[in-house]
Amino acid sequence: MTTTIIRNGLVITASDEIGADVLVDGEQVVALAATGSAVAQGWSADTELDATGMYVVPGGVDGHTHMEMPFGGTYAADTFETGTRAAAWGGTTTIVDFAIQQVGGSLREGLDAWHAKADGNCAIDYSFHMILADVNEGSLKEMEALVGEGVTSFKLFMAYPGVFYSDDGKILRALQKGAETGGLIMMHAENGIAIDVLVEQALAKGHTDPRFHGEVRHALLEAEATHRAIKLAQVAGAPIYIVHLSAAQALAQVTAARDEGYNAFAETCPQYLFLSTDDLAKPGFEGAKYVCSTPLRPAEHQAALWRGLRTDDLSVVSTDHCPFCFKGQKEMGIGDFSKIPNGLPGVETRMDLLHQGVVEGHISRKRWIEIACATPAKMFGLYPRKGTIAPGADADIVIYDPAAKQVHSAETHHMAVDYSCYEGRETTGKVRTVLSRGRVIVDAGEYRGAAGDGQFLKRDTCQYLR
Amino acid sequence: MTTTIIRNGLVITASDEIGADVLVDGEQVVALAATGSAVAQGWSADTELDATGMYVVPGGVDGHTHMEMPFGGTYAADTFETGTRAAAWGGTTTIVDFAIQQVGGSLREGLDAWHAKADGNCAIDYSFHMILADVNEGSLKEMEALVGEGVTSFKLFMAYPGVFYSDDGKILRALQKGAETGGLIMMHAENGIAIDVLVEQALAKGHTDPRFHGEVRHALLEAEATHRAIKLAQVAGAPIYIVHLSAAQALAQVTAARDEGYNAFAETCPQYLFLSTDDLAKPGFEGAKYVCSTPLRPAEHQAALWRGLRTDDLSVVSTDHCPFCFKGQKEMGIGDFSKIPNGLPGVETRMDLLHQGVVEGHISRKRWIEIACATPAKMFGLYPRKGTIAPGADADIVIYDPAAKQVHSAETHHMAVDYSCYEGRETTGKVRTVLSRGRVIVDAGEYRGAAGDGQFLKRDTCQYLR
Amino acid sequence: MTTTIIRNGLVITASDEIGADVLVDGEQVVALAATGSAVAQGWSADTELDATGMYVVPGGVDGHTHMEMPFGGTYAADTFETGTRAAAWGGTTTIVDFAIQQVGGSLREGLDAWHAKADGNCAIDYSFHMILADVNEGSLKEMEALVGEGVTSFKLFMAYPGVFYSDDGKILRALQKGAETGGLIMMHAENGIAIDVLVEQALAKGHTDPRFHGEVRHALLEAEATHRAIKLAQVAGAPIYIVHLSAAQALAQVTAARDEGYNAFAETCPQYLFLSTDDLAKPGFEGAKYVCSTPLRPAEHQAALWRGLRTDDLSVVSTDHCPFCFKGQKEMGIGDFSKIPNGLPGVETRMDLLHQGVVEGHISRKRWIEIACATPAKMFGLYPRKGTIAPGADADIVIYDPAAKQVHSAETHHMAVDYSCYEGRETTGKVRTVLSRGRVIVDAGEYRGAAGDGQFLKRDTCQYLR
Amino acid sequence: MTTTIIRNGLVITASDEIGADVLVDGEQVVALAATGSAVAQGWSADTELDATGMYVVPGGVDGHTHMEMPFGGTYAADTFETGTRAAAWGGTTTIVDFAIQQVGGSLREGLDAWHAKADGNCAIDYSFHMILADVNEGSLKEMEALVGEGVTSFKLFMAYPGVFYSDDGKILRALQKGAETGGLIMMHAENGIAIDVLVEQALAKGHTDPRFHGEVRHALLEAEATHRAIKLAQVAGAPIYIVHLSAAQALAQVTAARDEGYNAFAETCPQYLFLSTDDLAKPGFEGAKYVCSTPLRPAEHQAALWRGLRTDDLSVVSTDHCPFCFKGQKEMGIGDFSKIPNGLPGVETRMDLLHQGVVEGHISRKRWIEIACATPAKMFGLYPRKGTIAPGADADIVIYDPAAKQVHSAETHHMAVDYSCYEGRETTGKVRTVLSRGRVIVDAGEYRGAAGDGQFLKRDTCQYLR
Repeated sequence: MTTTIIRNGLVITASDEIGADVLVDGEQVVALAATGSAVAQGWSADTELDATGMYVVPGGVDGHTHMEMPFGGTYAADTFETGTRAAAWGGTTTIVDFAIQQVGGSLREGLDAWHAKADGNCAIDYSFHMILADVNEGSLKEMEALVGEGVTSFKLFMAYPGVFYSDDGKILRALQKGAETGGLIMMHAENGIAIDVLVEQALAKGHTDPRFHGEVRHALLEAEATHRAIKLAQVAGAPIYIVHLSAAQALAQVTAARDEGYNAFAETCPQYLFLSTDDLAKPGFEGAKYVCSTPLRPAEHQAALWRGLRTDDLSVVSTDHCPFCFKGQKEMGIGDFSKIPNGLPGVETRMDLLHQGVVEGHISRKRWIEIACATPAKMFGLYPRKGTIAPGADADIVIYDPAAKQVHSAETHHMAVDYSCYEGRETTGKVRTVLSRGRVIVDAGEYRGAAGDGQFLKRDTCQYLR
Repeated sequence: MTTTIIRNGLVITASDEIGADVLVDGEQVVALAATGSAVAQGWSADTELDATGMYVVPGGVDGHTHMEMPFGGTYAADTFETGTRAAAWGGTTTIVDFAIQQVGGSLREGLDAWHAKADGNCAIDYSFHMILADVNEGSLKEMEALVGEGVTSFKLFMAYPGVFYSDDGKILRALQKGAETGGLIMMHAENGIAIDVLVEQALAKGHTDPRFHGEVRHALLEAEATHRAIKLAQVAGAPIYIVHLSAAQALAQVTAARDEGYNAFAETCPQYLFLSTDDLAKPGFEGAKYVCSTPLRPAEHQAALWRGLRTDDLSVVSTDHCPFCFKGQKEMGIGDFSKIPNGLPGVETRMDLLHQGVVEGHISRKRWIEIACATPAKMFGLYPRKGTIAPGADADIVIYDPAAKQVHSAETHHMAVDYSCYEGRETTGKVRTVLSRGRVIVDAGEYRGAAGDGQFLKRDTCQYLR
Repeated sequence: MTTTIIRNGLVITASDEIGADVLVDGEQVVALAATGSAVAQGWSADTELDATGMYVVPGGVDGHTHMEMPFGGTYAADTFETGTRAAAWGGTTTIVDFAIQQVGGSLREGLDAWHAKADGNCAIDYSFHMILADVNEGSLKEMEALVGEGVTSFKLFMAYPGVFYSDDGKILRALQKGAETGGLIMMHAENGIAIDVLVEQALAKGHTDPRFHGEVRHALLEAEATHRAIKLAQVAGAPIYIVHLSAAQALAQVTAARDEGYNAFAETCPQYLFLSTDDLAKPGFEGAKYVCSTPLRPAEHQAALWRGLRTDDLSVVSTDHCPFCFKGQKEMGIGDFSKIPNGLPGVETRMDLLHQGVVEGHISRKRWIEIACATPAKMFGLYPRKGTIAPGADADIVIYDPAAKQVHSAETHHMAVDYSCYEGRETTGKVRTVLSRGRVIVDAGEYRGAAGDGQFLKRDTCQYLR
Repeated sequence: MTTTIIRNGLVITASDEIGADVLVDGEQVVALAATGSAVAQGWSADTELDATGMYVVPGGVDGHTHMEMPFGGTYAADTFETGTRAAAWGGTTTIVDFAIQQVGGSLREGLDAWHAKADGNCAIDYSFHMILADVNEGSLKEMEALVGEGVTSFKLFMAYPGVFYSDDGKILRALQKGAETGGLIMMHAENGIAIDVLVEQALAKGHTDPRFHGEVRHALLEAEATHRAIKLAQVAGAPIYIVHLSAAQALAQVTAARDEGYNAFAETCPQYLFLSTDDLAKPGFEGAKYVCSTPLRPAEHQAALWRGLRTDDLSVVSTDHCPFCFKGQKEMGIGDFSKIPNGLPGVETRMDLLHQGVVEGHISRKRWIEIACATPAKMFGLYPRKGTIAPGADADIVIYDPAAKQVHSAETHHMAVDYSCYEGRETTGKVRTVLSRGRVIVDAGEYRGAAGDGQFLKRDTCQYLR
């Protein structure tokens, strides 16, 4: 096994900032020693990486991606190959993607299909949540087996009637089964039944532009569904994890539940922190680039979300990466916003945008690592293997240059999509080197990995409940 | 036209307590004059009623009754004839009953059917809300016409899937139409979809006794639905009226909305103020007598409800009168609580039980009249014709003896049901005389009215929104 | 005794709007009869007033005035003679003014002094609250006697250290004595100790303009004191009445306490509903005209206050009438905002400004009467003698023209002060005729009363606690 | 310098649980390596400690002690020598004690006096907060200098008028100076002015037993003061730290402020988690053993406090160690509870009691270390020197036996006080070995340290604000 030493950096984890050298042996971190100490000096290795002036941080853990996801007759533009490579470029070394049960199909079939898509193609380690599109006696029974093989979280939808939607009875049953098996229920919390009425009414009034996507998906209908999901979870005696929370009113529901001590968790995404309905309302069809669900909100929601990240009422920042090209894909919704594929590219830019949040004073460096690495790893049963730098952890490590500037652009990003949500925006901080299980896969602007480097991760159950 | 003077009583309305003589001319109150004043002394009339030591209060307005209602293969035991007569005995001179749209049928058909049941049979004046069991383009369109003919409120159900249940899209549409026409949406707020799962699970575990009716209809599922109804109303820009609220957690949702200035209203019922899950859990099948929905709650909820009545977060006390005999009707649910017809008798005892709340210090005398007479009349567009004693108002007047004691019993009550929820309970205060539109129909223990005395009331829209 | 009939008007009380003729015999209303009814037609009287197209409303009850009040070396510009006459012009027929205990003096001495000022000078009926400036064993003992002679409310100050300020121990003792005697404690709720630090710091920085008066009297310091007053009241088991509430954050404290069922009440004043820090910041020294405490707040607080009036978290609108002329009085603070006498004129304009709130859709007509007449009368133990139109009530009646326009101006108002806060502002609605205990004192732009018409009112204890 | 290796233990920090060997070189941790790894195997040292089956945790940081504190004419029974030695026995390796400014004296004088008491006497490292008993221009100016020399936190009292009490103006000024200098204001939040009234009234009624200490120090008066402190801090733009929070209602105030994103922090103490008013009410004068301020609360508050620890609304558990012997000291208050010296022993039992909280399922192991070690170190500017186990940190390490049972007793404890609050209570978990800056001072029931081992720590400013 090869050994590597990362010297002279500032090692930042969710809890600590220390001047330490990191010793990697094979795929794992084996030791940390104070930089300059005799013991550190005594170390030698096959490779020495100098991180003077750099941050040495855990590789990012993105708990919410949709590679090659089918949606409305097309597919998310990133394959597991292109998407995980882009993730690596952006300093993310683990993703948890969503395998999808087909209506009428079994969980097993869905999971097998996603294993087939990912197997041998990933640049970084990956795992799966399971989308429960058809809650029934059979699929509920399968949950236990899946938990046993490391698929320990299950997503349900209160939106998308006729597609992924589950009614409250199905949700309650799934929550009960989650409580029983340790499987964590993740919820897309929007009242899709009510939203579909508003969609129909908007289109009938000729309100077909992308911005109406934001108007019909009313913030109060996200708040409503969030409250409902939490109450159903309380009735079931189960924890609940709200995905891609975007509305201040929905956050208030999570805050209230957490104040009372309930195991309610929520993630937000960088797009909700940095983009707004102003983007959705861009002239022409440009706004389609910003169509995702939950939708972008008016800019004043951003402050509430940043505050939620500081108060831990928002525990995780994931990407909900689900890119569709503007040409040919987003354009399917010209003249009817409801036909625009829902989703944005983001797996590559998450770590940088959140570091920009550090630069702008919204969060501390340690909180950056916590929401982007440590907490998602704990939430989804991967800690401390992923999400930290400690003896015994996988050597998924990013050497990050906190002072480097970069300008975001579709010209230069590595995601297989023809636009950037942040085109032309400058941020401070940039990945220099990325190690995945001990091997350098990105360094100084060069990609050194290969499809198939990444392995499937059997996950433990949610570690926030112990 | 005959004239009547009620002399020497304490006239109590929602706002005043005054020593005044009341002059009735024909069907209406025409004047009030200070007792003992020259002008009062100068009055003469066909009839003089002496109310010395008595309260002179408006006849009660019960905004929620179900005479002859079909439920689970049987019918509520009181007909319009027996039920309205019992109401009169108890000091209630107006009811608003619920006409029911059949699934697949029109509102008109439902309304006509209820008119046919009531016409010529009622002892007191009556009106109708309309139950929207089948929200569709046609029934939504009919709402406007019904508002025009005095049926100005529409009830929807978040419970009873497959029977009265409307999904959130239908609810949203009805709320929008309500906002447009002035029709007030009344909501049975329980998450029936989730409850039905718990019912099925309880029965599968052999939990068949009446008390499980209370357990499966979880307080959090009432709170959830209450919140959802309010949020949907906010999205629609409509007011909302929550019927038969019983859980403290549901009340908290109403309080929060009202604090923010939204037009959210709620009623509770005497059974939630005086009975509890202790009654539901009575040995044998006795608890079936107390099966209603929303269900009775643990006794500690009662204090919250009384407080809500004081703070006006609960604005109305109605009865949800829907009696089923123990023999033959309630017994349908032996061995399966879900087959017990839901409903309690109560139309006769409301005024007395609320007066008992005055005696016990929960509310003031004026608040008694407000929640039992004035506010329901305003809420349902009947004020000041009903609900107060003032020149121009209908002479629906009760002379009430505040010191008389009575013991409640099925032996002595006038409702057509074989048990009393309050069997053996003594309360203080009792109706002595009841006038309905100027005519004495109850006096000193004698019923002097007749079926058909009561007329249908065309109601105005909700007067709380002006 | 002379008799009067007011015919054909719309009689509006806190609870009713009825077409009724009002019969006055001597000083009291003796009867109401439906307009056009035989009984009304049969009435005759010495005087008949035609109110066709007019509102017939109870005379206003202003629960917070300071006639001839000494403040900072000067006196409020209105005497009891001029101030009560101006009140009458504006449709107010009762004031409750504040007698002041001197530090070192007894309540009795203070009360006697105020009786001497008012006796024989008032145009309308009046009563006194007592300012407790020196809480000690003696003054606490005196409270009982004062309650016995109709002075049933006592004001304390958390502001103005060295003048009226009481510390929390004194406040607690007064609240306890209030609970014991039925005396209602009224609180000026601002943290004066902290404010004085900010005043000193502002002046030291050369921040001497009137607008700094608003900045140093921080909204959070009103919220803080409001919370503290409520908690001390809860510890004492006493109700509490917060005077001149102006900050949304303070209102939130009252709302929270009321939601929990505590007897916390609050008033606001028209200046907080119609004026803002924009007025305080008017160029030059103009802002001094708007210096009062609690101060005017940024305009966005107004919506919260109107909402509080609708939700009854604000129960009363008083004026805190305490006028100082701009010339010679307000000017004392040129170069030092802390020397500007605190107070605004307002006793004449309250009824009109609140009616303007009706015109603009903030409140209903009945709520107008409730907050301006009925509730202050109930709160301060004057109901139903004052605050309503009912048999037995004092015939304090205003015939109000809802369509008349008026432009407010110091040129035309009757208060003895050289400016109007609303100079040039047009409002809709105007007093036409005012009766005080049965006698017309204002009619069609003519003042027909005389100093000394008004009598001292012995008040009952707070009627909101029964 | 000597070296030590701790092998085979489970290293627990606030964020991690890892199987690692810890290498200590001189006074500091220099490296951690995965147990069993080649690199760990390769280490040798002067001393090897085997921690198989043990936890290896950071030494405890007790942020609130009062050694030798003068109170009511006597002194806390533990000197710096006995108290810090007892702390070491209990696994605490850092205390932050309170130096006291005398009224009329300077901060410098107070600090010097406390340095003199501690210097050369301590078994473990120590630091000082400064009690600001006399806020004036001079003492405010001194704050900056003290921050510069590592005394970076200042305590004020809203209780104890005439002793430590500061009025709201002084508090505001101190908060402003704190915001300016980085000094953190710590607040004893009880309304002492109101409490003193209740004390006087209780004694006047002959209520002299210890339990009345709890009754007069009303929970609402802690909630009130907590709210006030937070609001004053917001006005000053300063963070605030509430000491020894004991009432659920006070916690609710902290939660509300934190939800809004304010830097409000609070600590509680083990006595509030494990004792209650039941102890205060023990027969005879026994309750005096449990007299401290804030007082013990009814047992139902405990659940709220544990929940607050889970939700991080309570961030720290300190001891408020301030022991007085029952004989001779507590007895000073026989016949007058207000003369009982306020304070309990606790510095030795904190780590064990909180571990008992782990055993009973209230908190996780990592949260145990976070609230007892890491967060107090961060809060008071000592991290990562203290509070964690990481390369570069001081080697303050406890080897903790999680399975050992112990029975608490004054017979066996090391605090210089004649009673234990937990006499006879059995808990699970016990300190085996304690290292202070690399040296073993407690091992297997033997004390190996000496007075003077401990050094004064210059603290950085609060690290929660970065």
